[in-house]
Amino acid sequence: MNNRTLLCDFYELTMGNGYFELGKGEEITYFDVFYRTVPDGGGFAIAAGLEQVIEYIKDLSFTEDDIAFLRSKALFSEDFLEYLAHFRFSGDIFAVPEGTPIFPGEPIMTVRAPAIEAQFVETFILLAINHQSLIATKANRVVRAADGRPVAEFGSRRAQGADGAMLGARASYIGGCSATACTISDRMFGIPATGTMAHSWVQMFDNEYDAFVSYCRTYPHNATLLVDTYDVLRSGIPNAIRAFREVLTPLGITSCGIRIDSGDITYLTKRARKMLDEAGFPDCKIVVSNSLDENIIRDIILQGACIDSFGVGERLITAKSDPVFGGVYKLVAKEENGEIIPKIKISENPEKITNPHFKKIYRIFDNETGKATADLMCVYDETVDERQPLELFDPQQTWKRKICVNFTAKELLVPIFKDGVCVYECPSIDEVRAYCREQIDCLWDEVKRFENPHRYYVDLSQKLWDIKHRLLEEKHGKP
Amino acid sequence: MNNRTLLCDFYELTMGNGYFELGKGEEITYFDVFYRTVPDGGGFAIAAGLEQVIEYIKDLSFTEDDIAFLRSKALFSEDFLEYLAHFRFSGDIFAVPEGTPIFPGEPIMTVRAPAIEAQFVETFILLAINHQSLIATKANRVVRAADGRPVAEFGSRRAQGADGAMLGARASYIGGCSATACTISDRMFGIPATGTMAHSWVQMFDNEYDAFVSYCRTYPHNATLLVDTYDVLRSGIPNAIRAFREVLTPLGITSCGIRIDSGDITYLTKRARKMLDEAGFPDCKIVVSNSLDENIIRDIILQGACIDSFGVGERLITAKSDPVFGGVYKLVAKEENGEIIPKIKISENPEKITNPHFKKIYRIFDNETGKATADLMCVYDETVDERQPLELFDPQQTWKRKICVNFTAKELLVPIFKDGVCVYECPSIDEVRAYCREQIDCLWDEVKRFENPHRYYVDLSQKLWDIKHRLLEEKHGKP
Repeated sequence: MNNRTLLCDFYELTMGNGYFELGKGEEITYFDVFYRTVPDGGGFAIAAGLEQVIEYIKDLSFTEDDIAFLRSKALFSEDFLEYLAHFRFSGDIFAVPEGTPIFPGEPIMTVRAPAIEAQFVETFILLAINHQSLIATKANRVVRAADGRPVAEFGSRRAQGADGAMLGARASYIGGCSATACTISDRMFGIPATGTMAHSWVQMFDNEYDAFVSYCRTYPHNATLLVDTYDVLRSGIPNAIRAFREVLTPLGITSCGIRIDSGDITYLTKRARKMLDEAGFPDCKIVVSNSLDENIIRDIILQGACIDSFGVGERLITAKSDPVFGGVYKLVAKEENGEIIPKIKISENPEKITNPHFKKIYRIFDNETGKATADLMCVYDETVDERQPLELFDPQQTWKRKICVNFTAKELLVPIFKDGVCVYECPSIDEVRAYCREQIDCLWDEVKRFENPHRYYVDLSQKLWDIKHRLLEEKHGKP
Repeated sequence: MNNRTLLCDFYELTMGNGYFELGKGEEITYFDVFYRTVPDGGGFAIAAGLEQVIEYIKDLSFTEDDIAFLRSKALFSEDFLEYLAHFRFSGDIFAVPEGTPIFPGEPIMTVRAPAIEAQFVETFILLAINHQSLIATKANRVVRAADGRPVAEFGSRRAQGADGAMLGARASYIGGCSATACTISDRMFGIPATGTMAHSWVQMFDNEYDAFVSYCRTYPHNATLLVDTYDVLRSGIPNAIRAFREVLTPLGITSCGIRIDSGDITYLTKRARKMLDEAGFPDCKIVVSNSLDENIIRDIILQGACIDSFGVGERLITAKSDPVFGGVYKLVAKEENGEIIPKIKISENPEKITNPHFKKIYRIFDNETGKATADLMCVYDETVDERQPLELFDPQQTWKRKICVNFTAKELLVPIFKDGVCVYECPSIDEVRAYCREQIDCLWDEVKRFENPHRYYVDLSQKLWDIKHRLLEEKHGKP
């Protein structure tokens, strides 16, 4: 069952039937996807999941069985069910490309469509964007902590479901991982899959030495031996060295590896490096795994652990330290007689108040440094003129102002669907990964800091600020 | 693409090819699935995910395209690829039924199969069991905190991928939730799907009152109104009361509801209850949502919040407070000349040392109270005689001993596959849910405590203890 059309919150259907019955189904609405808080207290997140949203939108359709199931709920009119039988997405979608660094409060996707359609696609869009943005963001933290050493994603067995594993590997690659242990993600998305042996391989032989020699004979060019089944320093590494000498040295092969999956990684890798070097295996790589994350990795590197690459599992594939990406989907405007009317949602919590209207976002790059200075949200019909000085101001502390000159303003939201037709060609996964790296290079180091990063500016144009504050005053306390 | 055969860690294939090349592929091996730590510091977990493991095992097969993909890796022999083309699972699987309370260290599944097969199924088995056991366990905590009030699972949009949503709803139901917002989980698994409106419904109308009246007219028997789009007490509840009076009262309908999704839930629900009662709507249910979990729920109930039911989203569907269920898959024995030879994995961390051998587990129920006293792990050929006193002892503090009399010993692991054929009929999801509730009723309250629960006894038979300690002594420090 691949059709994910019914992967929707039930209220999308009760509302859809309601709009249909009330003659409001064809009203054109605008919904924004945005998020409110960067996971793990970081300075930015990374957008991912767009390609899966595109597939979902293209595949949207109710089967006869779906309709029969919905009929059995005795809540929906026959006319609505008939409408659903011919349901397709006919609207427009704008989104930031995958791999783009994104900041709280700004739209990362805008859906413009008849009310029933725009409402209906909420659940899956959020699910896809939330999941992959979460993992891409986490992976990028881990990769930055590893400071140039390759990081492989190892977490399938602890993922929250099969998609968690398959698409988690995809998102990890976008965020900068170099490989995955998940074979199907290689087959489906071209993420390089790697792996050598588990403890069970070692247990399958009479002793560790036999296990290592057998592995080296089978894979002389790919011999990474897991050395912690019994005792790393007294048994694992001595046996690995003997096996390398016995099998690889006569073949003239010097590249090989060991993996350590338990114990004190700093201590063990330092000792292991020394033993391997003294035994004449300076090219032997040391791979480590075992419940790692960006904090542990930074700490053991700081202590001088001798590590060539990392395998990171459960804490990456579930984003364990902060496993929810809180993207939301909010009505920001609707059309009435061809005019776009901005809409707002108010809340007791000020950070939950929405930015109304159909919007554009510009990312302002300083031409001298190449660095991103701020993002500017505008009303859809505004344009930024790069030849004129641009005044930005803080939307809360409006007296905080800044004039930008000599800048480039890049629009972030690009057309994905137009009148229900996909008008966007997805870049390859390697292009997405490279774009992500480039874009992160355009952020100031202060934004990339792990602890207490600088808050990147996401500002409103004067026009948008005025509209928002007019709506706030109109709605406030109005019973 | 439904075939999940390639959803495996790559090392399952490098090991498989190695066993094949070395003539070890047909050696019969025994692997246990077990976990080490109860999430959230709880006293027990709940097993779930077996049905998805069964489907996976039945569907296991490599397509021609899979084989071509593997050939492109230039690591596997043609003979092995030819073997994979005819690959089926031919072994035996034993497992505890879904919904069973499970404890650290005991096998919840045992796979007995030729080495390549048993190794190959590791990743998916762990993924399925880890994910659903995690969510069922979390859901049960939330449901117990809600103390009899229904809990609906609302988290699809924040799930880690589509399976996270669909199977997460299934696992939540096993753990005791009464409904889900995820429509497809109703269609696929029969979990009742519910839902009424989002904030966007309210924003689609000129004002909140119109939105509420329209909803009540469309769904007079199912009118749960979301009252926090603008201001709960000054706008939402007064408008809801007016709409109920206008539409429901003339129809003689007294059952209705409001939902509050933000703000101070305790304060708002107390005020809301009073307003609704005074307006003559004592049957109006109050539903609350907004980043709830078991801790918040216990706290607001303790403060006297007036709540009829809960919607629990992101913190349930991701098990946010502890999002990894650490089930592992370890070789515990292999057959040599028809004899079962126990195997052990040693570790610097004593809790990572495995319990060797092909095992049985008995759950010992006290006949007087009906409560579970302890679990006993035995060697496969042992049996517990209920007519004889049974001596249990702590496997660490072996001087701690206890004699059980007047007990019932129930074997927990039941046959699922025999020679590759499924011999188990999965109970319906409602049967699993009812069984789960019954089994949890058999646990002492002390085991169910949220904070510092009593550690339930999982003991080894004398025979198993002796074998384990013999292996430990043999392997310790042996280079």
